[in-house]
Amino acid sequence: MSEAKKVVLAYSGGLDTSCILVWLIEQGFDVIAYMADVGQEEDFAEAKEKALKLGAKKVFIEDLKKQFVDEYIWPAVRANAIYEDRYLMGTAVARPCIARRQVEIAKQEGAQFVSHGATGKGNDQIRFELTCYALYPGVKIYAPWKIPAFFERFKGRLDLFEYAKKNNIPLPVTPKSPWSMDANLMHISYESGVLEDPKAHAPKSLYQMTTDPVEAPNTPEKLEIEWKDGVPTKVTNLDDGTVKDDSLELFLYLNQVGGKHGVGRIDIVENRYIGMKSRGIYETPAGTILYHAHQDIELFTMDKEVRRLKRDLGIKFSEQVYNGMWYSPECEFTRHCIAKSQEGVEGKVQLSVYKGNVYILGRESPRSLYNQELVSFDVQGDYDPTDANGFIKINALRLQEYARLRSMEAK
Amino acid sequence: MSEAKKVVLAYSGGLDTSCILVWLIEQGFDVIAYMADVGQEEDFAEAKEKALKLGAKKVFIEDLKKQFVDEYIWPAVRANAIYEDRYLMGTAVARPCIARRQVEIAKQEGAQFVSHGATGKGNDQIRFELTCYALYPGVKIYAPWKIPAFFERFKGRLDLFEYAKKNNIPLPVTPKSPWSMDANLMHISYESGVLEDPKAHAPKSLYQMTTDPVEAPNTPEKLEIEWKDGVPTKVTNLDDGTVKDDSLELFLYLNQVGGKHGVGRIDIVENRYIGMKSRGIYETPAGTILYHAHQDIELFTMDKEVRRLKRDLGIKFSEQVYNGMWYSPECEFTRHCIAKSQEGVEGKVQLSVYKGNVYILGRESPRSLYNQELVSFDVQGDYDPTDANGFIKINALRLQEYARLRSMEAK
Amino acid sequence: MSEAKKVVLAYSGGLDTSCILVWLIEQGFDVIAYMADVGQEEDFAEAKEKALKLGAKKVFIEDLKKQFVDEYIWPAVRANAIYEDRYLMGTAVARPCIARRQVEIAKQEGAQFVSHGATGKGNDQIRFELTCYALYPGVKIYAPWKIPAFFERFKGRLDLFEYAKKNNIPLPVTPKSPWSMDANLMHISYESGVLEDPKAHAPKSLYQMTTDPVEAPNTPEKLEIEWKDGVPTKVTNLDDGTVKDDSLELFLYLNQVGGKHGVGRIDIVENRYIGMKSRGIYETPAGTILYHAHQDIELFTMDKEVRRLKRDLGIKFSEQVYNGMWYSPECEFTRHCIAKSQEGVEGKVQLSVYKGNVYILGRESPRSLYNQELVSFDVQGDYDPTDANGFIKINALRLQEYARLRSMEAK
Amino acid sequence: MSEAKKVVLAYSGGLDTSCILVWLIEQGFDVIAYMADVGQEEDFAEAKEKALKLGAKKVFIEDLKKQFVDEYIWPAVRANAIYEDRYLMGTAVARPCIARRQVEIAKQEGAQFVSHGATGKGNDQIRFELTCYALYPGVKIYAPWKIPAFFERFKGRLDLFEYAKKNNIPLPVTPKSPWSMDANLMHISYESGVLEDPKAHAPKSLYQMTTDPVEAPNTPEKLEIEWKDGVPTKVTNLDDGTVKDDSLELFLYLNQVGGKHGVGRIDIVENRYIGMKSRGIYETPAGTILYHAHQDIELFTMDKEVRRLKRDLGIKFSEQVYNGMWYSPECEFTRHCIAKSQEGVEGKVQLSVYKGNVYILGRESPRSLYNQELVSFDVQGDYDPTDANGFIKINALRLQEYARLRSMEAK
Repeated sequence: MSEAKKVVLAYSGGLDTSCILVWLIEQGFDVIAYMADVGQEEDFAEAKEKALKLGAKKVFIEDLKKQFVDEYIWPAVRANAIYEDRYLMGTAVARPCIARRQVEIAKQEGAQFVSHGATGKGNDQIRFELTCYALYPGVKIYAPWKIPAFFERFKGRLDLFEYAKKNNIPLPVTPKSPWSMDANLMHISYESGVLEDPKAHAPKSLYQMTTDPVEAPNTPEKLEIEWKDGVPTKVTNLDDGTVKDDSLELFLYLNQVGGKHGVGRIDIVENRYIGMKSRGIYETPAGTILYHAHQDIELFTMDKEVRRLKRDLGIKFSEQVYNGMWYSPECEFTRHCIAKSQEGVEGKVQLSVYKGNVYILGRESPRSLYNQELVSFDVQGDYDPTDANGFIKINALRLQEYARLRSMEAK
Repeated sequence: MSEAKKVVLAYSGGLDTSCILVWLIEQGFDVIAYMADVGQEEDFAEAKEKALKLGAKKVFIEDLKKQFVDEYIWPAVRANAIYEDRYLMGTAVARPCIARRQVEIAKQEGAQFVSHGATGKGNDQIRFELTCYALYPGVKIYAPWKIPAFFERFKGRLDLFEYAKKNNIPLPVTPKSPWSMDANLMHISYESGVLEDPKAHAPKSLYQMTTDPVEAPNTPEKLEIEWKDGVPTKVTNLDDGTVKDDSLELFLYLNQVGGKHGVGRIDIVENRYIGMKSRGIYETPAGTILYHAHQDIELFTMDKEVRRLKRDLGIKFSEQVYNGMWYSPECEFTRHCIAKSQEGVEGKVQLSVYKGNVYILGRESPRSLYNQELVSFDVQGDYDPTDANGFIKINALRLQEYARLRSMEAK
Repeated sequence: MSEAKKVVLAYSGGLDTSCILVWLIEQGFDVIAYMADVGQEEDFAEAKEKALKLGAKKVFIEDLKKQFVDEYIWPAVRANAIYEDRYLMGTAVARPCIARRQVEIAKQEGAQFVSHGATGKGNDQIRFELTCYALYPGVKIYAPWKIPAFFERFKGRLDLFEYAKKNNIPLPVTPKSPWSMDANLMHISYESGVLEDPKAHAPKSLYQMTTDPVEAPNTPEKLEIEWKDGVPTKVTNLDDGTVKDDSLELFLYLNQVGGKHGVGRIDIVENRYIGMKSRGIYETPAGTILYHAHQDIELFTMDKEVRRLKRDLGIKFSEQVYNGMWYSPECEFTRHCIAKSQEGVEGKVQLSVYKGNVYILGRESPRSLYNQELVSFDVQGDYDPTDANGFIKINALRLQEYARLRSMEAK
Repeated sequence: MSEAKKVVLAYSGGLDTSCILVWLIEQGFDVIAYMADVGQEEDFAEAKEKALKLGAKKVFIEDLKKQFVDEYIWPAVRANAIYEDRYLMGTAVARPCIARRQVEIAKQEGAQFVSHGATGKGNDQIRFELTCYALYPGVKIYAPWKIPAFFERFKGRLDLFEYAKKNNIPLPVTPKSPWSMDANLMHISYESGVLEDPKAHAPKSLYQMTTDPVEAPNTPEKLEIEWKDGVPTKVTNLDDGTVKDDSLELFLYLNQVGGKHGVGRIDIVENRYIGMKSRGIYETPAGTILYHAHQDIELFTMDKEVRRLKRDLGIKFSEQVYNGMWYSPECEFTRHCIAKSQEGVEGKVQLSVYKGNVYILGRESPRSLYNQELVSFDVQGDYDPTDANGFIKINALRLQEYARLRSMEAK
């Protein structure tokens, strides 16, 4: 008979994607399981074995941590990427990284199908699928949670449990927490379940990446972050002298220090791309430190008006990434422009982390437009203060004309 | 002989404006001293007496605290006003409030001149003067620090001291701190002097409005802020039951709680309107709490796309205000549009303050667009997940076309 | 048996919607035919009879011309609405007007379904359906061209012809032109068929609303348009003295004069909301005249910076309308803000139309910010030219600093 | 005694700058006269002789036509640069080109001063001076019309005449037209004098670069413009076969054809950078043709969302250029980003010019994202129309939620 259809499944090792794996085989697919290591805590060897036992033809475990930092997190840092002024987008930045590799595997293995366990109400389905369509335009996406035959069969957790028992899928040993989470080296996100009530406070036990600020050390810790082309190149702990200058190590180190001091927790309601409001809790320790430090060095070195243009591009970039458009013509273009803007963003920022907060302490740069003499109140220098009169009077012209028109109209 | 010219001088009681007062009299002016009480710590009675002693014809002490909150801070809160993503603009918001009253006095007293002690390198001269020109188009501004006869005579502090001695101007009893500051009920700003070195850390002793987070209480304090039309209407301390529902009292109370917990300190380099970069340190306790709480209730209640439009208007508003354009046609227009956007922004936000940070804990509203049932992962409701496939595929069309064009070009 | 489902069908009288009407009856619907008179040329009485003959339970012919002008075209004129810098959106502006009435009829008649003949590749399906969902959130949309049972049966024109013959649907007497068109009092659009080749020139015979400029009168015709609150209130023909001051009559008159002179033809490729590029040819005589005249009076009366804000809002509005979002929170908000900006936009614009072009000749207004004395090269007035030096030098500060940094780096 | 100060004067050969030349010598300057040939009609040899006769130490006549097109007009074409939606900025684009060379001469000749004849109310002083400050930060600008000693002496034209007679400055033989004009190969602008009355129609005799449309040929002329990287590379006259493929020649040819057909006249009121409204009349034949043709090829080849980003950058660029900021960090950055966006903008546009208008007829490109099969109403292809249902329903979610909230509130 005809050859089986091949599908590459983004496999997490958990109950949902295990059931999906088995169900896909039932539908006649040859299933290739794919796990991306983007820094989440996971026993990959065990998961691999499990997938094979469940019938996967092949299992790919891919370490994407370094490229996640270099190719995805760094552009986000350059952009000061932040969604709706608060969310640093740890999930949104990871998705294109994960899906890109999945699509590469699909092409390499001659699979026309890819599959994932994201639901039909969330953002991740979009980020996942848009990346796939962009990088593999002819791909077919088989997303069970959006296929009636699947979602009408599995209406609740109990249906999954039953199916798992029937199909020798190992049940989770620990009870599921009453929310869902997504973890990678940039952040952990928590949503749904008890968090769906927007006025319910998050339980203390929820957080896994950061210490509760109340229990964090009583002494601030000082760091110096060095920048080049808008990207951190070196972190120095000013208290104990630790130095990190590899991108991945540096990022993990900032996670460690930030996490210890409870940095980067937020609790927000956000607007999903599909138009629903949803409540999410996030912890992003390294990302939060870098967000503040990058803002500081950028403002210190970048021309005022270039920065305004770049800020607008950063807002656009954030929306593109949140909406799954990393691999779109506009996001490519935006990344290019933002990278251009970062050419002179270099120097050092000193900061302290303490009880959930990041405090900028000072900064220096060989390429700063800050001119201490020019700005000084004590030194006049070349600056002629009478110029300011002309500046203000010309600026006032329009206001005076407007006032005159209005006073005439009032008569 | 001809009548003396009248000038209304924004008088602070300090050395600079005392010297200016005397110097203006020397230039033949009748000087009316004007002090605005916008919440700064000051012995107004003493200052009044001093001004009269120095020769002021009249002294006006005006309590503007309530109107400062209602007419200036509240619009800034609605706008999430923030300059260059970090500065909450406590000075910029106060200036038009102060200058408006000064101009009213000038008109009422028949004075054609107004005067102030701001220098020619800063932002405040601009905010001050643009407000004056806008509200009193025929006014003449006499700004000694930009008049050669003055600034060439007073080249340094010593010249002022000498002049003061000669003219019986009381010298300050406490030594001047090695930086300058501007205080009102919204914030205190610190700049110049030793702070002009951007890499020098701020001395611990600098801060006057907030406790050092390290010395702040070890227990978070919980507040609930109630909102209506985008403005806080009630603050409840969830720990001790304190309630404030008058705008000024509520704001002062948030300053007190925020200050106690070290909330609202920042150290930044910013771009002045005149194009210089300058380093400033700010503490804005109530403003910081309200900034976070307003963002939360706004996002909870406002439509996603309205919010994007309003965010852009908020950015524009921030720049207008920073640049002294409060009383400009465009800022009036922007305030009107922002106020319109706030019509449904109501509800309650619960938060805690702790060691310099503000943590949002939960929110509720009778007018939220958050739909718990719609967003729930456990309830399907009316939502048909297969719609998401169509949504994504249509979004992908453009990306696939782009990919196809590029693969054709690659051949 | 159970009651028949009721559907309100947007009926055009043409072959497609006649077939749809019959097919809907076949599917068990009670069909209410609805025709909106938005100024297209149509024998409505004949169409009504035809619909009834084909089995419609009721037929509504609704004259929406006046409300189309007042409630839809005027806001577009105020906004200078233009899509992708060229298209005045005659179709996009009409759709919400038409669909609003359809939804009102559906509610009034107790119909849960609405239907239309728009295809699945175009913009109109979106504008139509989004309006319906927004104004009647529980409505069900039955769009045959997107229902497989329909579109798989009617794969080409021949299938429609056959079906028509079988069902006594009168066939069109005139042969179909090799393109499709959409007409209303604002414009006629032409697309598809032979126009799908983007390099093929449009045939001369295509245009129905405007004279070929080559054959248009050899003498320009002069008009004066009077404005109030950003909306035209009176048109005077300066050559023959004709005056129109009713909104609908005025608009139709401008169509007549503009059409006679060949005004308002464009041939463009545009981006549809769904991401395809499509080629369209449009003629919009009155809309084009008003676009130019409104721009002129707006610039003459509106503050420079308000105009920049309003221009951005106008761009947003244009995209909202093009994308079918007229009845969205953001478009409501945008319309409100734009209307606010138009409060002082009043006065008269004189212009001529000639051979396809609109030439602005002059303008006057009681509320202009134009100040002839201030701007005059011959009169100095209050203006002090030395102020400009200070203005420029302060503006140059930033540029000089940048140059100095770069020359230092070059060393 | 001490060496004379050297000044490079932008000299036009006219009465004003001739008087300035002599007056500068009176002030003790060694004057170097500089004339830029940017395509204006001028007897440069005669002007040179005149300058030398009046006492100039040296005269530089610089042919900048080619660089004006390549380095200034082309970036403006790429940007679709247009100020306040109407003005193509022929003067604003030329100024930095002219001033750059002046500054080069000043450096080369060791002159610390530059001078020009622009007045204190206009834009040109700003464009001129900002370019000088940016490229020669230490330069001193000596602008007589903003120096009291000069402008108080020369209060009107009669004062200039008298001074000219006294100093053997030849008086103009033709009477001055009752307006001022600025000409270069991109455009001629007319303003001031009788044009200062904004409702006065421009006299027919004013225009020098374009034929009155009424007297233009009665037959349209067809052109094909070929593009590469967003810049025209070849123009073919489809009627007579003329071909131009050198940038300067091509531009001059478009001026010739456009001028013959009366293309590119506008009459506007605009907002100057200093905040005044002023009335200007412009004729820009080649620029107008290229503006329309570039828009067309750009939309045909560029992704929809990239185009939206680029449109915003084009608006920014236009304001930067109008305000004299060509040589600013932000304009450099903007030009870079815009150039990046143009990488795929290539192909051919066919158009006709007739009686003042430009009609796009068709376009083709090897790199277009237009997909005739995808968009066709007759071919379904890969496109699944049911996807559009999902797309619309997801887009409607937000609108339905909003409607539900409002109907709840209404109860």
